[in-house]
Formats: sequence, C-alpha cells, structure tokens
Amino acid sequence: MFPTPRLDFFFELASPYAALCALRIEDVAGRAGVRVRWRPFLLGPIFKAQGLAETPMRVYPLRGAYMMHDVPRRARRYGFTLSVPPDFPRNPLLAARVAVVALSQGWGEDFSRALYRAEFQEGRDIGQAGEVARVVAAMKRPAEAVLAAAQAPEVKAALRAETEAASAAGIFGAPSFLVEGELFWGDDRLEDALDWARGRRDRRAEASP
Amino acid sequence: MFPTPRLDFFFELASPYAALCALRIEDVAGRAGVRVRWRPFLLGPIFKAQGLAETPMRVYPLRGAYMMHDVPRRARRYGFTLSVPPDFPRNPLLAARVAVVALSQGWGEDFSRALYRAEFQEGRDIGQAGEVARVVAAMKRPAEAVLAAAQAPEVKAALRAETEAASAAGIFGAPSFLVEGELFWGDDRLEDALDWARGRRDRRAEASP
Repeated sequence: MFPTPRLDFFFELASPYAALCALRIEDVAGRAGVRVRWRPFLLGPIFKAQGLAETPMRVYPLRGAYMMHDVPRRARRYGFTLSVPPDFPRNPLLAARVAVVALSQGWGEDFSRALYRAEFQEGRDIGQAGEVARVVAAMKRPAEAVLAAAQAPEVKAALRAETEAASAAGIFGAPSFLVEGELFWGDDRLEDALDWARGRRDRRAEASP
Repeated sequence: MFPTPRLDFFFELASPYAALCALRIEDVAGRAGVRVRWRPFLLGPIFKAQGLAETPMRVYPLRGAYMMHDVPRRARRYGFTLSVPPDFPRNPLLAARVAVVALSQGWGEDFSRALYRAEFQEGRDIGQAGEVARVVAAMKRPAEAVLAAAQAPEVKAALRAETEAASAAGIFGAPSFLVEGELFWGDDRLEDALDWARGRRDRRAEASP
C-alpha cells in the first residue's frame, strides 16, 4: 500500500482565481486520485512584504482589467459562471477565520465554495459579517456561535500560521499548490500540480521492492 | 470556403515564457488548424507606462524566483529544455528589430526560435550585437547587412507600431495572443486562444447559409 498522493491547496477568499479553482478542484483531483488539503491564507501581508500597497490587480490596472474579463471566460470554459465585482477585492479576514473553524470541523471545503459563490456569483460583500453569517446559516450551522469562534485567539493564530507557511514556501499569489515542497502558482497549473503529485507516488511505487 | 482562423502571437525576445511558447506554437497551432502571425514587440515601454521601473520578475523577487524554477519545469513538460540566465533580462531591442526585418523576408519565425535557443538554452547575451549576428549567420543570412537593415528608420518605426498595437490591445505581458480583439495572456493560455480561434470559425460556418 502506498499513501494517497496529496496536494496542499492554498486559497485566499478574496481571490477570483482561487474561486475558479475551488469550484473544480475536488472533481479534477478526485479523477486524478489525489487528496486535497484546503489551506486558507491571506495575501494582504504577502503583498505588503513585497512592497505592494494592495492587490496587483489594483496597482496595475491593465492586469486588473484583464482579470475582470478572463475570470468569467475561464469559468464558462469550466461550465459555470463567475464574475468579479467592480469593487473587488473584498476583505477576506473574517471569512478566512471562519474557514479555519469550519475546516477543523469538517465542513470548511463546503463553506469555502459557498462563500466564493456568494462573492463571485451573487456579488455579495463577504467583507461584511452579516454576509458571512448568511453563508454559514445557509449551511445549517449556528452562525452566531461560528462567528464568535472565529474570533478566538487560537483561530487567529492558526490563520497567521497558514499565511506564514505560505510565505515560507515562496507563495506570492492565489491559488497556489504545494506538493512535497514543489510550488505551482495559478488555477491553470492545477493539472501540472496533480501530475506532479501522481508522479511522486509512481516513483515511490517503483522504488519499493 | 471559410478563411483559416488566425491568431496573433505577441512575443518579446527577452521573455522566457514567450520562448516557451515560441518553441511549441507552430506545432500546436498546426494541429488546431490555426495560422499564427508572429508579432514582436517590446515590454519595456509597457512596463514603464504602468509605473514599473523594470520587469515585474525583478521588481517582485518572489515572482522572479518562481519563474526561474517554473520555466525549466514547464519546458520539460513540453519535451525540451530551457533555463533563465541569472542576469535575466537581456536587452531585446536589436534582436526585436532584426525579427522585424526577418519576418518581412519570411525567415522571422526561424530567427526568433533560434534567438530564444541561444538565449535560454545556450545562455548567450542576446543583448550584444555580436550574439545576434551569430544567430543570423548560423541561418546562412548576411549578418552585417541584416543588422544594418535593422537600424533603418522604417524598421524602428515598425517595431514601435507593434508595441503601440500591443498596448492598445491591453497587453501587459508576454506571450499574449489576440484573436479578433480577444486577448489571452500567458503561454498556458495558448490552447484557450486556439480554441477561441476555432470557435470563431465554427460560428461563422454555422451562421452562413
């Protein structure tokens, strides 16, 4: 028996490219036989450490204009719809903390997908606590308790630790994938990362007696 | 009869991602039945217009470090080798002017591929006239005459016009693809751009009696 190959999926809840990936990753990874570990992090501190005052999509308007057009086009290619609200980006802090709580309870993947849908399909401002609460409540979870839990010091610390892990791995954008230290950046590299994860498994299998 | 679908390939001779694309595009486009028009341009003026003093790969070292690792990895996936010299980027100005001359004479695609190989396989500094001359001479073309022709005012103007066309199309990086005004950025979007070009043809075919 060989361990199932695993891929770490670093996602940022304000990122439309991470949304594009979140809505398809389980499907694609499932077919590839690769297990996905969802790891929420914040890009803000990583941008700031590079001297970027905010997302490059705002600092470089051509890049941002391309994204506004590219994200819906790419989503159509995958068979769903997404659009980037004109006042992008939303503040992802509370939502990311809720994702930490939800992942620890086994419903974080569903929560993250539902949050992305609210943000990039329904155009809701998930920077508002009320909107995050709506998403939680729609999943039949106790919104008030969950949002309170999200403010616990250990949850805040856990999210900071994930952002530090992302930074230590050389991550500078979202989504990013880590496979045993090998870094891939961008939704359009998911397939490369999965192939890498499967190649690793195959090499292990070959090397064993 | 319907016209062969066409894709405009905007390439920058200092860009390793454009090199990655140049070395495979005719193959992939040929299989897709799409004709490629090679259009050299310069990223320098486009970066400057966005307030970038130089390539984002240097302004943002994490991005640059990723590229140094990603380009060879991606090239291996395509079945060839490429690496980015540590003193990236080279000055592409003379080489781009030679590409304009060569494209007008029907050997510009071959020249551009040969130049990319010299730059990213052999590690040569194609910012030096002597290295550009070597590439031209290796193609059995009169290097001295070609380099002189590359300095003609109309060649300089033609390259400036291509850079202005790129800028007008919203291009901010290389490679970029234009299909009837539809912009795609990045080597990893070549397949999307080709599909788009073919879809256009199919729609035209469906619309006709």
